[in-house]
Amino acid sequence: MNKFRLDEVDHQILDMLIDNTRVPFTDIAKKLLISAGTVHVRVKKMEEAGIIMGSSLTLNYEKLGYSFIAYVGVFLHNTSQTKFVLERINEIPFVTVAHVTTGKFNIFCKIRAMDTKHAKEVIFMIDDIEGVYRTETMISLDESINDKKRLMHTIFKDM
Amino acid sequence: MNKFRLDEVDHQILDMLIDNTRVPFTDIAKKLLISAGTVHVRVKKMEEAGIIMGSSLTLNYEKLGYSFIAYVGVFLHNTSQTKFVLERINEIPFVTVAHVTTGKFNIFCKIRAMDTKHAKEVIFMIDDIEGVYRTETMISLDESINDKKRLMHTIFKDM
Amino acid sequence: MNKFRLDEVDHQILDMLIDNTRVPFTDIAKKLLISAGTVHVRVKKMEEAGIIMGSSLTLNYEKLGYSFIAYVGVFLHNTSQTKFVLERINEIPFVTVAHVTTGKFNIFCKIRAMDTKHAKEVIFMIDDIEGVYRTETMISLDESINDKKRLMHTIFKDM
Amino acid sequence: MNKFRLDEVDHQILDMLIDNTRVPFTDIAKKLLISAGTVHVRVKKMEEAGIIMGSSLTLNYEKLGYSFIAYVGVFLHNTSQTKFVLERINEIPFVTVAHVTTGKFNIFCKIRAMDTKHAKEVIFMIDDIEGVYRTETMISLDESINDKKRLMHTIFKDM
Amino acid sequence: MNKFRLDEVDHQILDMLIDNTRVPFTDIAKKLLISAGTVHVRVKKMEEAGIIMGSSLTLNYEKLGYSFIAYVGVFLHNTSQTKFVLERINEIPFVTVAHVTTGKFNIFCKIRAMDTKHAKEVIFMIDDIEGVYRTETMISLDESINDKKRLMHTIFKDM
Amino acid sequence: MNKFRLDEVDHQILDMLIDNTRVPFTDIAKKLLISAGTVHVRVKKMEEAGIIMGSSLTLNYEKLGYSFIAYVGVFLHNTSQTKFVLERINEIPFVTVAHVTTGKFNIFCKIRAMDTKHAKEVIFMIDDIEGVYRTETMISLDESINDKKRLMHTIFKDM
Amino acid sequence: MNKFRLDEVDHQILDMLIDNTRVPFTDIAKKLLISAGTVHVRVKKMEEAGIIMGSSLTLNYEKLGYSFIAYVGVFLHNTSQTKFVLERINEIPFVTVAHVTTGKFNIFCKIRAMDTKHAKEVIFMIDDIEGVYRTETMISLDESINDKKRLMHTIFKDM
Amino acid sequence: MNKFRLDEVDHQILDMLIDNTRVPFTDIAKKLLISAGTVHVRVKKMEEAGIIMGSSLTLNYEKLGYSFIAYVGVFLHNTSQTKFVLERINEIPFVTVAHVTTGKFNIFCKIRAMDTKHAKEVIFMIDDIEGVYRTETMISLDESINDKKRLMHTIFKDM
Repeated sequence: MNKFRLDEVDHQILDMLIDNTRVPFTDIAKKLLISAGTVHVRVKKMEEAGIIMGSSLTLNYEKLGYSFIAYVGVFLHNTSQTKFVLERINEIPFVTVAHVTTGKFNIFCKIRAMDTKHAKEVIFMIDDIEGVYRTETMISLDESINDKKRLMHTIFKDM
Repeated sequence: MNKFRLDEVDHQILDMLIDNTRVPFTDIAKKLLISAGTVHVRVKKMEEAGIIMGSSLTLNYEKLGYSFIAYVGVFLHNTSQTKFVLERINEIPFVTVAHVTTGKFNIFCKIRAMDTKHAKEVIFMIDDIEGVYRTETMISLDESINDKKRLMHTIFKDM
Repeated sequence: MNKFRLDEVDHQILDMLIDNTRVPFTDIAKKLLISAGTVHVRVKKMEEAGIIMGSSLTLNYEKLGYSFIAYVGVFLHNTSQTKFVLERINEIPFVTVAHVTTGKFNIFCKIRAMDTKHAKEVIFMIDDIEGVYRTETMISLDESINDKKRLMHTIFKDM
Repeated sequence: MNKFRLDEVDHQILDMLIDNTRVPFTDIAKKLLISAGTVHVRVKKMEEAGIIMGSSLTLNYEKLGYSFIAYVGVFLHNTSQTKFVLERINEIPFVTVAHVTTGKFNIFCKIRAMDTKHAKEVIFMIDDIEGVYRTETMISLDESINDKKRLMHTIFKDM
Repeated sequence: MNKFRLDEVDHQILDMLIDNTRVPFTDIAKKLLISAGTVHVRVKKMEEAGIIMGSSLTLNYEKLGYSFIAYVGVFLHNTSQTKFVLERINEIPFVTVAHVTTGKFNIFCKIRAMDTKHAKEVIFMIDDIEGVYRTETMISLDESINDKKRLMHTIFKDM
Repeated sequence: MNKFRLDEVDHQILDMLIDNTRVPFTDIAKKLLISAGTVHVRVKKMEEAGIIMGSSLTLNYEKLGYSFIAYVGVFLHNTSQTKFVLERINEIPFVTVAHVTTGKFNIFCKIRAMDTKHAKEVIFMIDDIEGVYRTETMISLDESINDKKRLMHTIFKDM
Repeated sequence: MNKFRLDEVDHQILDMLIDNTRVPFTDIAKKLLISAGTVHVRVKKMEEAGIIMGSSLTLNYEKLGYSFIAYVGVFLHNTSQTKFVLERINEIPFVTVAHVTTGKFNIFCKIRAMDTKHAKEVIFMIDDIEGVYRTETMISLDESINDKKRLMHTIFKDM
Repeated sequence: MNKFRLDEVDHQILDMLIDNTRVPFTDIAKKLLISAGTVHVRVKKMEEAGIIMGSSLTLNYEKLGYSFIAYVGVFLHNTSQTKFVLERINEIPFVTVAHVTTGKFNIFCKIRAMDTKHAKEVIFMIDDIEGVYRTETMISLDESINDKKRLMHTIFKDM
């Protein structure tokens, strides 16, 4: 896991992109007193090194009618089915995160649904995957924190 | 929870932004055969309506040395402390997600750390918050899915 | 627990009232070939004996916006607080049922709420009662059976 | 889930029926200073809209020899059997309530029985349904609250 | 469950037998100022009524090398196997008590063994019974109370 | 834990007493072709060695109105209170057995009560002991085996 | 389990070897004022009696890249497979300890791995053994004590 | 965590010491066709680098009367007490291993005791440490594997 070396300029570019992925490179250049071409080259290099993997839109799911969040723990009949089950889970768009975990669950998922009725449908989709033995659901009453920006800034401050 | 009405053009604009938040408005305009000004107005309207809340960079945490992911369930002495504890948790940048949940935990967090030793420090920070009674940790052995794009596309396809 | 003796006529009257509490006594009388006065006397007697305690309307909670059902297990600091806590719970109209139970919970409640957000408020009301140590919530995805009539008919068939 | 609009008069009629389903319409009319015909029409409309689904007798189960209440959590082999198992459970009159739930159980039932021995028979009936994998029972030591009237009054006060 | 009526004399006879099952009837007679024949008749009657079922020796298991006590919870594949499994368990002399229970276990046993190694053998005997799915064992570190005499005296004092 | 040596004659005497503690010594003597005096001496020796600790009557609790059996797991605030709590538990005659145990409970009790209501009172007595933090109850639906005689015979056969 | 008698000299020899298994016998002899031959004879005797079974090197696993420690609880389909599964587990060098246990697990293992990824591989190796039904993993955040020397010294001090 | 580089000769020396820590350096030298001085220098270097931390005697605890092994999970009131509690645990020689862990326990210990009675004393010593809230014990019925040599050989084979 050979780490790519980022210098101070890279950090400052990332810091600006973290706050707003759509900030124009010319704005970054002006702020950091470098050329827009340098910004472009640096970003390209970080993309090629696999450090910047893309960007994602932050939508207000509540306003879109998707306010129901639940965590679903999945028990498998046998861990040799892990890969197969994950591929099936990956076909359910309402599962936004899935981990292979230690502890009582084999796979642990985060789902977003419209309401209780829809959540039931999504949970049943997971339950119906071959190899899935049982699921346990924990419902979110309130998503209080969902913010990777603080972590990102901290990472670059510490490096 | 009055839903903002999105029309077909809004959906198509969102579909393109979901795939790449940095796509220039002129590209969107060309593809949808509308003017860049229209794209600009539509996006602005969706931002003002609170549907588009921003964008976030997708970084490769493994390459940045942050490959350790864990879920931490938090038990409080009393739920009246929920708001206070969440504010303290919010000061720990390594906690990227936190929910108030049903089931055995009061609060359920996702953390990212460098390694076992660092994870221990982060867990102890949470444990040391006044009002926190106990925590239970479940460690991710593999983050297999972390993708909200499939959900976002599905939402706009279904609307 | 001295049981009141019900005869065949009582059973038949009850059977008709179970199906429709609003059925006029004259209809019951006609069907059973007895006088309306007899029906009146019998019902009165069963009310005085405490067998008939009243009647309740069956409303469609979904149509009234109360589609969220959850079971809340309550842990007390000390069982000597059971009576006090039940009195406080009784002041929360969204709790429709509460039992003192064996097993891991001290008190077990059924609640009806409007949605996740409202459920959280109701759960927090319970959590905030003095003497309540922790709660655990299990959410109903679907109320499939809620029917005491089958039981009532069975009881009178068996007696 | 389009909500039927109830006006103040509907609320007042419901408030009286909630307290006593057998109250004559003429009494309601007199109290609300409207005609009995209006009461009749309003109630009919609420029945047709599915808001009033019926009424049920409140019996004293203790006096009828049915003082044993338990909650039974049901684990299924596979959630695809949920519908089938619920139909079988529906044939057991001693099960008065059944929910599809989140958390560790697939189905959660409330049963009423005569005593420990009878409860065992009812639990074994559920256990013997094809597709049922295991059950866990929690026994009620005391049914302290069983009252939907407070909720109903609250709903109409808040609307 | 028609209860046999015991009078004051029966209670006093039982009280003496509870303390020492080997007390001669002549001693009881002398103490209670009745004839030995009466004692004999009364005891016979209580035996025929099934109230006195026999007597058992209280041995010191520690001195006999059987100081290891454990409780074993048994999970069955299906409760329809309960009777069959209990018959098999009944063939293992080291199981001194077995109950059909509510809660997580189907059957709950008390075992006495010589030491850890022997306990393992006994637990494996139970595990190997057809229909047994899993067992969970809780080991006694100290049997502090094992005394039915206090209960027996209380029963007769209260009657 | 120096074991007292029992010879073949002792075993045979014990075998007869196990089946019936009231068997006259003369009957034992006749059966074993030894003198009644020898039986007397042997039994006395076993009593002095602490092997025979006494005898107890086997009553039919169902017929005496005590058909409710439950196991109560007790959690203490601190194990240093174990001795104190056991002394308090020992004052409740409805607790017939109590163990200090490994696993999740500190103390594990068996109780006998008249019915659900009485069981609740007994459980609350335990709950109210100072130092008791919580209890969990598991109810017996059926006491299928309660027989130490098989064990006793096995012990003497194996020695 | 006939215990070999160790005398004071044996204890002193063991005490020195416990601290340093490589201490030359001549050093032990000098310290204890006995001949090296005596030391040799005593050690040989303790080896033949099976008291000294060998010695093991204490390496710094962290420095060797093996800093990840976890405990894995193994559930079997049937305890009759215990021996077979233990033989398969014994072929995985990363499992350093394995016990047959009471409680919820059938077998309980300690594993050492290089990191989360490697731990996942080791856990999957155990999961893939025929007869293994499920595993649960608990991760060590810090091995604070790993020292048998204190115990050994205590044993010989107490004997 | 800068890793010390070991070469092929170091590995071969370690391989011989792993099998027998008391093997004379001259034997190692002869086997590896190097001088005893080289062996000495290499071992010294590995000791100074902290790779070889010492050696420990492998005793037969069963023969020494210490055949009882248990795992004790410790819950703390607050994780800030972890360090203090570990220091107290470290004073109990019967605790041979202790970890700070994820999952439900704060600290997880392995203990060796003489028998059930002694185990109870050791568990109570842990329970009595200030800051310890509760413990849960899992008893080993059989230590089937306790062998770090396979791991050590694997490490050096793989490097």
